[in-house]
Amino acid sequence: MTPKIERFLAEHRADTPCLVVDLDVVVESYARVRDTVPDASISYAVKANPAREVLETLIALDSGFDAASMFEIETCLSLGAPPESIIYGNTIKKSADIEAAYARGIRLFAFDSEAELEKLAVAAPEAGVYCRILTSGDGADWPLSRKFGCELDMAADLMLRARDRGLDPVGISFHVGSQQTDACQWDIAIGNAAKVFDATAERGLNLRMINMGGGYPVRYRKDVPDLDTVGQTIRAAIARHFGDNPPEMIIEPGRSITAEAGVIETEVVLISSKDYANGVRWVYLDIGKFGGLAETMDEAIQYPIATPHDGSSEGPVAIAGPTCDGADILYENAGYQLPLGLKVGDKVLLLKAGAYTTTYASVGFNGFPPLKAFYI
Amino acid sequence: MTPKIERFLAEHRADTPCLVVDLDVVVESYARVRDTVPDASISYAVKANPAREVLETLIALDSGFDAASMFEIETCLSLGAPPESIIYGNTIKKSADIEAAYARGIRLFAFDSEAELEKLAVAAPEAGVYCRILTSGDGADWPLSRKFGCELDMAADLMLRARDRGLDPVGISFHVGSQQTDACQWDIAIGNAAKVFDATAERGLNLRMINMGGGYPVRYRKDVPDLDTVGQTIRAAIARHFGDNPPEMIIEPGRSITAEAGVIETEVVLISSKDYANGVRWVYLDIGKFGGLAETMDEAIQYPIATPHDGSSEGPVAIAGPTCDGADILYENAGYQLPLGLKVGDKVLLLKAGAYTTTYASVGFNGFPPLKAFYI
Repeated sequence: MTPKIERFLAEHRADTPCLVVDLDVVVESYARVRDTVPDASISYAVKANPAREVLETLIALDSGFDAASMFEIETCLSLGAPPESIIYGNTIKKSADIEAAYARGIRLFAFDSEAELEKLAVAAPEAGVYCRILTSGDGADWPLSRKFGCELDMAADLMLRARDRGLDPVGISFHVGSQQTDACQWDIAIGNAAKVFDATAERGLNLRMINMGGGYPVRYRKDVPDLDTVGQTIRAAIARHFGDNPPEMIIEPGRSITAEAGVIETEVVLISSKDYANGVRWVYLDIGKFGGLAETMDEAIQYPIATPHDGSSEGPVAIAGPTCDGADILYENAGYQLPLGLKVGDKVLLLKAGAYTTTYASVGFNGFPPLKAFYI
Repeated sequence: MTPKIERFLAEHRADTPCLVVDLDVVVESYARVRDTVPDASISYAVKANPAREVLETLIALDSGFDAASMFEIETCLSLGAPPESIIYGNTIKKSADIEAAYARGIRLFAFDSEAELEKLAVAAPEAGVYCRILTSGDGADWPLSRKFGCELDMAADLMLRARDRGLDPVGISFHVGSQQTDACQWDIAIGNAAKVFDATAERGLNLRMINMGGGYPVRYRKDVPDLDTVGQTIRAAIARHFGDNPPEMIIEPGRSITAEAGVIETEVVLISSKDYANGVRWVYLDIGKFGGLAETMDEAIQYPIATPHDGSSEGPVAIAGPTCDGADILYENAGYQLPLGLKVGDKVLLLKAGAYTTTYASVGFNGFPPLKAFYI
């Protein structure tokens, strides 16, 4: 919560639910993230929050961009981002989209399979490519699973094949999982990337870049390593695994740039109990899993909640959204407590909600409109 | 798959992903559902598919409507549904929305708590109300959990209180859970509703209606009881628990009206393996969990899939969507097999996808636009 957001909410009394993002915090977060690995270039993960105002703020800071789709690429370009500042980081692309991106000047692409490499060789001749390797996902609150990446031996083979197909085999990428809470995971992944560098070097191909993806954790309700710790771990791992020949580096922060900049204001629609015996209060908000809070799936991301009664006595609650869907429960087992004085109509704030909220909102599930957002 | 949809897809070659809904199937499904409990009136669960064309089709059949929000109510009214055909079935409503609905002529409201009853007493004086009771959710592929409903003793107290507050205490509702595969769950719930009728009658209040919600199962990949079986079970339960004094009845079908009417056409974007040892093929489609397939959460709803190579030899696959999100996996453990000849660029059909798809789609996660739909 910042004074700017507080003032905006007090003055505008917008209909809830709404997200308010303080762009000054985006600027500050960008600087803090940049300092973690000063030698890395930053490609902001556009998917975390693709609002025009956020992208313009980052373009003004000379940030680069990691795009997940041709739609995101067009958005960045339309706001003035130079094509060489944009990488096409999705390993799953239609040939037509690769062609379109290439035609617009994009020259660096992710892949993790032979089939994707083949598409790139045809649709993006001579472009730079990097191969994504698997990570375990251990330690991540929003892990990325085996959906992305390939094993190390396959990655080495694919990089050699990329050269044979006329592409520029630039390097290796990984992603330790979003909201990664164990700094050691970067060390493991950097070590694995170094192994691929060694394997291809033995076969006459020198790689030169590692893209370390995102994953920097945000302090929601639980304690997480701070950015300094993560940065130190990464710098130490680069030194240990690459010695005095460090690679070019890219990082792709998303959550760590925009999460803390945003606050969602929501209204308590109903407070109820299911029976006379059980003490659990059910608190229903006017935003839920399908209104922008998709990351509450399995109670993974736990937003800090502020109410007008904070400081008074609290009791356990289950918290749910406003739709007629049984899956639209935010927190039932995460141990949330809210003030006993909370009442229907109260405005409640979900903090650190500037990332991965607006674009997850459904187009109109149960008729409810998407999350409104204000950028100030 | 119907000839009409087949012809449409062949002739229009729309960009994928897209949903095509055959309105003739909506009409047929409506008739089949109506025959399950001929004495019940039907309130179509608008949330299942609120497309104008679907609603107009059902209005022409004199269907009623179960609305989850004031937005859905306005949609139905704007298409010509009379206000007395619409019930406001969400137990979680803002006072302002109750007031607005009442002003537009809505006279039947759901609730399951004292706080909601209080709102109704103030904002919808003398309106009809029904109290939702808890169900176990057992047997449902998309259960509704303890988010909705209250215990029986509380329901009886609340109905008496509704009378005292000047409302018209009409009856009791339940929902056995969406995609309910155990017909006995209706018998249990109807028995419970009858207990509340008895409890209030002893205290001088005769209830007259039960709203049996939705839950009629659709045959996706797994065998489920057919509608005749469910209908027989319901009619037998009404006879058993209410004897020769049956209540008025409402059913709220949604999935069973629109699911089978729709087919999603999608394209294979990528097929890959993660390593040399493991045989699992990953098949990536251009639609995923955030593009309309939210009900694949925990692999709950399993759409039958048709490919151009059906009939040839198959092998196991994991199936995922096109976004950079690790949660965007559709099926990893459900045992899907797809033809070994499947290739990038193939068009693949997700069958029985006309319910709970379009409105779940995100506004633009990863930049991908919402699911397009055609109603023919």
